[in-house]
Amino acid sequence: MNKEELTPMRHSLAHIMATAVTKLWPEAKLGVGPVVENGFYYDIDIPGVAISEDDFKKIEKEMQAVINQNQPFEQSTKSIDDAIAWAKESEQPYKEELLNDLKRAGTTVAKDLSPEEMGTLAEGESQLDSVGFYTNRDFTDLCRGPHVEHTGQVGAFKLMRVAGAYWRGDEKNPQMQRLYGVAFKTKQELHDYLQMLEEAKKRDHRKLGKELDLFVFSDLVGSGLPLFTEKGTILREEIGKFTQELRERTGFTRVWTPVIAKTDLYKASGHWDKFGDELFLVKSQETSDEFVLRPMNCPHHVQIYTSKPRSYRDLPLKFMENAGDYRDEKTGELHGLSRVRSFTQDDSHAFVAQDQIKQVASDLVEAAHEMYSVFDMELKFRLSFRDDGEGYLGEQALWDKAQAQIEELAKENELDYYVEEGEAAFYGPKIDFMATDAIGRQWQVATVQLDFVQPERFGLEFINESGEAEQPVMIHCALLGSIERFLSVYIEHTAGKFPIWLAPEQIRIISVNQEAETLQMVDRIEALARNKGLRVYADNDNESVGKKIRNAEVAKVPYTIVVGEKEVANGIVTPRVRRDISVIDAHPELHYEQFVQTVANESISRIIKSSL
Amino acid sequence: MNKEELTPMRHSLAHIMATAVTKLWPEAKLGVGPVVENGFYYDIDIPGVAISEDDFKKIEKEMQAVINQNQPFEQSTKSIDDAIAWAKESEQPYKEELLNDLKRAGTTVAKDLSPEEMGTLAEGESQLDSVGFYTNRDFTDLCRGPHVEHTGQVGAFKLMRVAGAYWRGDEKNPQMQRLYGVAFKTKQELHDYLQMLEEAKKRDHRKLGKELDLFVFSDLVGSGLPLFTEKGTILREEIGKFTQELRERTGFTRVWTPVIAKTDLYKASGHWDKFGDELFLVKSQETSDEFVLRPMNCPHHVQIYTSKPRSYRDLPLKFMENAGDYRDEKTGELHGLSRVRSFTQDDSHAFVAQDQIKQVASDLVEAAHEMYSVFDMELKFRLSFRDDGEGYLGEQALWDKAQAQIEELAKENELDYYVEEGEAAFYGPKIDFMATDAIGRQWQVATVQLDFVQPERFGLEFINESGEAEQPVMIHCALLGSIERFLSVYIEHTAGKFPIWLAPEQIRIISVNQEAETLQMVDRIEALARNKGLRVYADNDNESVGKKIRNAEVAKVPYTIVVGEKEVANGIVTPRVRRDISVIDAHPELHYEQFVQTVANESISRIIKSSL
Repeated sequence: MNKEELTPMRHSLAHIMATAVTKLWPEAKLGVGPVVENGFYYDIDIPGVAISEDDFKKIEKEMQAVINQNQPFEQSTKSIDDAIAWAKESEQPYKEELLNDLKRAGTTVAKDLSPEEMGTLAEGESQLDSVGFYTNRDFTDLCRGPHVEHTGQVGAFKLMRVAGAYWRGDEKNPQMQRLYGVAFKTKQELHDYLQMLEEAKKRDHRKLGKELDLFVFSDLVGSGLPLFTEKGTILREEIGKFTQELRERTGFTRVWTPVIAKTDLYKASGHWDKFGDELFLVKSQETSDEFVLRPMNCPHHVQIYTSKPRSYRDLPLKFMENAGDYRDEKTGELHGLSRVRSFTQDDSHAFVAQDQIKQVASDLVEAAHEMYSVFDMELKFRLSFRDDGEGYLGEQALWDKAQAQIEELAKENELDYYVEEGEAAFYGPKIDFMATDAIGRQWQVATVQLDFVQPERFGLEFINESGEAEQPVMIHCALLGSIERFLSVYIEHTAGKFPIWLAPEQIRIISVNQEAETLQMVDRIEALARNKGLRVYADNDNESVGKKIRNAEVAKVPYTIVVGEKEVANGIVTPRVRRDISVIDAHPELHYEQFVQTVANESISRIIKSSL
Repeated sequence: MNKEELTPMRHSLAHIMATAVTKLWPEAKLGVGPVVENGFYYDIDIPGVAISEDDFKKIEKEMQAVINQNQPFEQSTKSIDDAIAWAKESEQPYKEELLNDLKRAGTTVAKDLSPEEMGTLAEGESQLDSVGFYTNRDFTDLCRGPHVEHTGQVGAFKLMRVAGAYWRGDEKNPQMQRLYGVAFKTKQELHDYLQMLEEAKKRDHRKLGKELDLFVFSDLVGSGLPLFTEKGTILREEIGKFTQELRERTGFTRVWTPVIAKTDLYKASGHWDKFGDELFLVKSQETSDEFVLRPMNCPHHVQIYTSKPRSYRDLPLKFMENAGDYRDEKTGELHGLSRVRSFTQDDSHAFVAQDQIKQVASDLVEAAHEMYSVFDMELKFRLSFRDDGEGYLGEQALWDKAQAQIEELAKENELDYYVEEGEAAFYGPKIDFMATDAIGRQWQVATVQLDFVQPERFGLEFINESGEAEQPVMIHCALLGSIERFLSVYIEHTAGKFPIWLAPEQIRIISVNQEAETLQMVDRIEALARNKGLRVYADNDNESVGKKIRNAEVAKVPYTIVVGEKEVANGIVTPRVRRDISVIDAHPELHYEQFVQTVANESISRIIKSSL
C-alpha cells in the first residue's frame, strides 16, 4: 500500500470525523485536521464538553453512517473575503483566524503556517486570491485536498485517543482536543496494525528495562540520563565490542577523546551553528575557557588527524571510538533509551583518497550486513544522492565520482537498495541502513556518510604520490547508531529474549534444597561455567522450586538447570531451554560438563540457534 | 635519611645562601626562605640585578666559604617593635611588611600567612609579643628555626635554578627572584639525586608520549584535555581491562553512568561544596536544569544502589566503572598526563555490612599486589587512621571496628605497612598504596577508602537478617587511581619500553627488499600474528634495512624480524629482541610459526620476561 493512495483516504476520514463531531455537537469549533503517520487527527474545541474514550463508539457510529452513504467529496473555491464571511457565518473562529492571517500578511504568514495549517489553503498561484473548499453533503471544510471520490472509499479505521493540544502549538492559545484515528485500506491491515501496537506495548523497552533490571533513571542525576545496571552494562559492552570487532578487521583502530572541547572547535566545524540550543554549554570557573559537551565526535577525531603530517601511505586512515555524546533534547521529547540526553555512538571516521571511497564504504556495508544478520534483522539500503537543487557543497565532479562508487558497490554487493535523489546531506551523499524488527517496524539504524566539507573547513591534507598536498574525503559511519537507541529497538525486537552470546545471564542454577551436597554440586557447576567465561547465577534461596523456575522465566534466562538428588548422584542435568531457542529436544539429558561446554561454544560464536 | 634530620640542614642552607647573596649584593632585599622537597629556596629582590645561572658558581663559592668557617647558628628573640626597628634599620622592607602585618592584626594575619611565611615567626604563645631570630656571624634573619649547630653541618648542596615569583604569591605585588637549591646529607646522595633527575628528564612522559605517538593535545580542544592516538588507546584499554579483571574475580560487576548530573546530586553528596571552583558547570539551554561535569563517580553509583530495595543477601554489592571525570584545574598547574582536566578513574564502590569490611578490603589489597607486581613496582601501604582530633564523622565504635579490621588484614596479608594517625579522611579510615618506580621515586597510586558519611547523606540502607533497616558502609577503591596519571608514572617507570602484553606494537616485520616473494612472506607472518591476536606492523617501505631497524628501535618495539632471501627460503627467522627483555639468546633462530606462537603465549600471560 503506497502513501499516495493512503493520504487521500486518511484525509477524507478527518473530514468524516469532523462531520460526525459537528453532528453530535453542533457548537463544535474546528481547528486543523491533517494526515499523520498511520492515520489522521482533528483539533476540536467544544465549549463545555470534554470528549473522552467513552464517546469513541458514538463518534465511530456516526462516521460509519456517513461512510455508508457514499457521500461525494466536491471541490470548490471562494475568494478570500467570501471565505472569511463563510467562517464568520459558520461560527468557526479558528478557521476565521487562519483566513484573516492569510489575507493580512500574504505569503509571509503562509510561510509561517505549519504543514497542517498549509493543508487548509488552496494550491498554487491563486492562494492569496482564492482558497479551496471540500464539501461532503452537509459538511464543508476549508481544504486544499486531495480527497477520495466519496466517503465510501476510506478503508478501515479506528479512533485511538484524545489529547489536549494548544491551538497552533502555542501554549498562550486556547487548548483544544486532538482526536486521533488510525486508518488502513483493509480491515486485515488495520487488524495487523492494532495487533502490532498491542505487541509493541508488551515489548516496550522501558517496561522490559525495569523488569529485566537493565537500566534506571534518577531524579538527582536528571531526566534523559540513563544509568546502566550490571545487566544493561553487559548488553552495552558486548554490543560495543561486536561493532568494533567488525570494523577492526578492515583496519579501523581505536582512539580515545574527551567529551568536552572549547567552543572554538565546534565553531570551526560548523556544529556550533547547526546544534544551537541543543548544545550543553560548559563553563570553567578557574579560567575564561568556554566549552561544549560535544554533540558529535568527528571534530575530535579530525584533531588527531591533524596532529601530524599525513602521506598517501597512511590512507585510508581509520579511527573508531564508542564515544559519549550529549544533546540537550527538550524534556517533553525524552523517551526511555530511544530519546536521551546522553548517548554513546559506535562512531568511526575514515580519511580516504577519492578513489578509496568505494572500498572503504563497501567494507562498512559488509560489516553492517554481518551485524544485522547476527541481530536477526533484515537490512534495506537507501542511497541518498544529491538532486539538481542548490546548497550542496563540494565540486560536482567529486559528487559524481563518489555517487558512482556508491552505486557500484551497492550493485557488486547485491544490496537490497534504492536511490533517493535529494536526500543527500549538503556536505555529501550517504548510504542509510534500514532494519526491520520482529513486529514489522522499520528503523533507520546506521549510515555511511561521505563528507566533503569538514576536510575543507579544517584544511585537512595529505601528501599524494606526486608529492603534492591533496584533500582527503571523510567517511562517517556508526553501525549501531547510538548504543542507547539501538538497545531500545533491539530490546523490543527480541522482547528481552537475548541470544546466548548477549544474554546478561546465560545460565541459572536452581538448588532443590539447602543440603550441603546439593549446594556443593551447584557450586561446582557454577565455578565451571564461570571458568569458561559464562555469565551464571546460582539461586540457592530458600524458596519453592516452582517459584525459582518462574523467576528464571521472568528474567528470560536462556538455560536453567535444577539441581537435586538425582543431579547430585550422577551429574546428569536436564536443562530447561528458553522457548524461542529452537532445539531438537527441549529437555535433553546430559552431563553438566557437556552442558556447560555446549553453552560456552554457543556463547563465543554469537550464533542464535541452540545446538543442545 | 629521615626528614627530621634534613629539614634543619636545608633550612640552614637557605640562610647560608642569603648570607652569600647579601655579601655579593649588599643591596639585596630578602623575602622568605623555606625548606621544600629535596631542598630549599629564598625569594630575593636585588634592585637592577637579574641573577642568572651564570652567577651560581660565584654564589656557591661564597656559600662554601661560609660553610668552611663552621659559623655557629645563634638564636635570639626581640619584641615585635624591636624587630620592626631592626628590619627598618637593615633596609629589609619585605621583612618589615611581614612584621607590621603580624603586629597589626595578630593571629588573624598569622593564620593567613603561607607555611613559608609562618617559618619566620617564633613558635607558641609568645608569637605576638616576641619574634625569633637566628644569627650566623654577620648575617641575622627573622626565623623560628630549627637550624643545625653550625654552618659546617649542612651536607652536600647544589643551586638548581632561578625563577620569577611574586611577593607573597600575589601578582599585584613586586616580582622577586626565587633561588632554588637541592641538598642531601652526603655527596653520594646528592649525586644519586642529580643522576635520577637526569634520568627522569630522559623518561619525561610528555617527551615519550610524542616520540612514541601515544597522545596529543589540541589548542581547539583545550589545555589539559589529552586525545589518545591508536597506540595510547591500546595502553589505556589494556590497563583498563587488567584493573577490572582483577576485581571481577572477587565479584565486582561493571556499571555505566553518564558524566553529568544535576547539581542537586553533588549538593546532596557534599562534593558541590568540596570542589567549589574546580567544578565545570553545565548549562541547559532548553530547560532551566543546571548540571555539573562530575568530579567523581560515587554519587552516580549510589543512585544505582538506591534504585531498588536491598537486602543483606545482596551484600557486599560491588560496582565498578572505568569512568570519565572532569576537574577544572588551574591552567598553570596542568602537566602532561599527570595533571589534566579530563581523566578516567578505574573506580569501584562496594556497599558492605560492617563485618564485611575486612574481607572486601583484603580482596582489593590482594588485587593491588598482583597488579603492581605485574607492573614491576614495589608497594608500601599506609594505614591512615583517625587521631583524637575533632571533625571526624561517624560513630567512634564504627571507626574502632573498621580500623581494627584494616590492621588485621594488613597483618594477615603480611603487608609492608605503617599506621599514620590523623591521616584519615573525615568520613573514614583508608589504606594508601605507595609504589616505587624504576628510578626510586615514590608515588601514591591507589586507595581503599572507607566511607561512613555518603551512606548517611543519601540515607542508604539494606534489610538485615533480623528484618531491620541497617546502614551499609561504602568502600571506594581505584587500583590505578586515574588511568592518565598512572600512565604518566608508568611511561616514565618503563621509559616507554612496555612489556609484551601491553606494548602497542608487539612485533615489527621488516622487508629487506620489494620483491614479490619477500612481501608475500611478510604478509604471511603478519597475517599469522594478527590471527593470534598480536599487534603487528609490517614495514615494507623502500628504505634501507638499517634505517628501518633504527625506526623500530626508536618505537621500542619488543620484537623485530627482518625478512630477506634466507627467511623466504626456509621460514627461519632471527628475532631482534628489545634489550630490557632478558633472553637466553638475544638472537635465537627459530621458525616463524614458533616465533609467533611464543610471542602470543607471552602476550596472554601478562608476564614481563621473554621466554624466547
